Amino acid sequence: MRGSADGVASDRSAMSNGGVAVDKGVDFANYFCTYAFLYHQKEMLSDRVRMDAYYNAVFGNKHHFTGKTVLDVGTGSGILAIWAGQAGARKVYAVEATKMSEHARELVKANNLEDVIEVIEGSIEDVTLPEKVDVIISEWMGYFLLRESMFDSVICARDRWLKPTGVMYPSHARMWLAPIRTGLGDQKMRDYEGSMDDWFGFMDETKTYYGVDMSVLTKPFSEEQKKYYLQTSLWNNLHPNQVVGTAAVIKEIDCLTVTVIDILNVRASISSSITTEETRLCGFAGWFDVHFRGSKENPAQHEIELTTAPSEDHGTHWGQQVFLLHPPIEISEGDDMIVNFSMNRTKENHRLMEVELSCEIRKPSGKLLPPFKNKYSIE
Amino acid sequence: MRGSADGVASDRSAMSNGGVAVDKGVDFANYFCTYAFLYHQKEMLSDRVRMDAYYNAVFGNKHHFTGKTVLDVGTGSGILAIWAGQAGARKVYAVEATKMSEHARELVKANNLEDVIEVIEGSIEDVTLPEKVDVIISEWMGYFLLRESMFDSVICARDRWLKPTGVMYPSHARMWLAPIRTGLGDQKMRDYEGSMDDWFGFMDETKTYYGVDMSVLTKPFSEEQKKYYLQTSLWNNLHPNQVVGTAAVIKEIDCLTVTVIDILNVRASISSSITTEETRLCGFAGWFDVHFRGSKENPAQHEIELTTAPSEDHGTHWGQQVFLLHPPIEISEGDDMIVNFSMNRTKENHRLMEVELSCEIRKPSGKLLPPFKNKYSIE
Repeated sequence: MRGSADGVASDRSAMSNGGVAVDKGVDFANYFCTYAFLYHQKEMLSDRVRMDAYYNAVFGNKHHFTGKTVLDVGTGSGILAIWAGQAGARKVYAVEATKMSEHARELVKANNLEDVIEVIEGSIEDVTLPEKVDVIISEWMGYFLLRESMFDSVICARDRWLKPTGVMYPSHARMWLAPIRTGLGDQKMRDYEGSMDDWFGFMDETKTYYGVDMSVLTKPFSEEQKKYYLQTSLWNNLHPNQVVGTAAVIKEIDCLTVTVIDILNVRASISSSITTEETRLCGFAGWFDVHFRGSKENPAQHEIELTTAPSEDHGTHWGQQVFLLHPPIEISEGDDMIVNFSMNRTKENHRLMEVELSCEIRKPSGKLLPPFKNKYSIE
Repeated sequence: MRGSADGVASDRSAMSNGGVAVDKGVDFANYFCTYAFLYHQKEMLSDRVRMDAYYNAVFGNKHHFTGKTVLDVGTGSGILAIWAGQAGARKVYAVEATKMSEHARELVKANNLEDVIEVIEGSIEDVTLPEKVDVIISEWMGYFLLRESMFDSVICARDRWLKPTGVMYPSHARMWLAPIRTGLGDQKMRDYEGSMDDWFGFMDETKTYYGVDMSVLTKPFSEEQKKYYLQTSLWNNLHPNQVVGTAAVIKEIDCLTVTVIDILNVRASISSSITTEETRLCGFAGWFDVHFRGSKENPAQHEIELTTAPSEDHGTHWGQQVFLLHPPIEISEGDDMIVNFSMNRTKENHRLMEVELSCEIRKPSGKLLPPFKNKYSIE
């Protein structure tokens, strides 16, 4: 395979984002361009858990929308703006950074809301609205909540455009972590080992046929492959019975008051008790939920929850992020774990994350298993 | 799936490239980053056709290297520089834009050539060498030769650093086009139709459950999917018996004299005779070859050819680019075709290409089939 060379427009202005200078052209190349495809919008619009939650949040709480002004941050195809309009909003500003804005405008018109909804193409950071708004609605959640760092833009919008009495949709968010069992780790280890077997064959051939000794690259190649197969978190929709211990909240966010500084890092020390007989601890799963509760002064009439927790019937396109252990550890019901979790944005790309996870396991007898510490990237 | 957010360093300086302003940070994000992975280097280093050609070109023509100065443009892991060194070069400058340069440096040292080979990390456009060179060697070929537009950098290097008596490795390149039969078109049409079936189901559900009429997006969605499934060229290693007519050269390049202007567009009008009994014309395949002939004043002792033509046993990682026809056309031995081919760089990304291909078929009876014209992108 040759190199990738995906298309993208160039824009060289820089913005400040969580203290990191971000080149907008690069950010578009890496990030926004995906959202310009209807196929991708359709994937999100087909997520029934996501759709039901926002739909029920809006139509179950019409008092937040009727006669009000609303801002939809990253409207995509325009669905949330249209629901806000259908729920009786006086005016909806629907901001979208990509060319998807043109489709949103068409969709708004086809649903007879062009008098209510104004679709604005631009970064929310650059947009000027003619008024402050009563509600900010946005579907900003990435994998494990914070990947993509899109919430930064929602916070920026809130600080600039939400009235002091305004309401955030969603209003709250939480991140969860739990110990799990899974066959994914064995599979990934086989993939890694297969890749290294290939490498050794390749190295022999290159020496034999082409007279070049590649052995000095074995270590960096192995590290690259380890990072790819073993130290990168995996997307998965787990079955609830794969969760082998109690889940714990590692971050709580009040969308009305949180700052970008508050979400730059996620650090937590949690405890979890193993709730499954004789099993293998194969790693940890991270997921999130968000809630639509309105505000203290202006509460929801019907509180709605959107959860991406392991579920037998209600998987989401977010799934869970799985952090694997190599090798797995034998554990039993009643074992107690202390897990230290830390997540930061990567230096190279503020939309990607690196995780450090350390763990101590205490048997009911009081015996401590050897502690371990691992690093992962969320890509 | 959420959006992509692949890691990349930011660099905001701009360069001129074929008349197009290119943002280097964006170019890195889109293009160079792939080459920083050893896994990707290994894919190219495992291509025996590629490796044999360069190996035989260098060691079959040691007179071009012994005691000479050499520049390797885009050295990657450093293999061509190492061969040049092993063939007796006095000095080799090995320039690489990505962090792969660090691995190249290690590989050079491990193969005891650190006194001969100097690995330089940087864009060839920015690098200053202490002297002009006798040979420029580079493996710059992308899919269908010109995708990636890396040859621009080789031309830049040649104009700045090659002695008037210097030699290019490779010295010549050609692009080919031929009519083919393949089952890929039927498969892609099924994929496209399946995607549209999904869309109509999705549209119904969105109306029924969520009260939004999506029908206005059917046309743009269909266009997006057509472009993806039907109007994007495909990578394939064809069997020679899938080529159903004579192949024709659509571009010839003398690497010693060609300019960037000469390769911005490829335009050709060619004829091809169908050489297969009763079959279907399913599309066209494009491929390339390059030759190592030295220069007129300093010719090769052993001319070497690297071809990526359809081959029973010698497929390459470049394969061929397939441009599909929908639907296929019934053709027979003796039919004559006139094909007009045109390829340009896309506006958004100078490393990607757009192709226009029109065709007229004349039966031996003199009867003309309805002509057709199609557009494709090479991504």
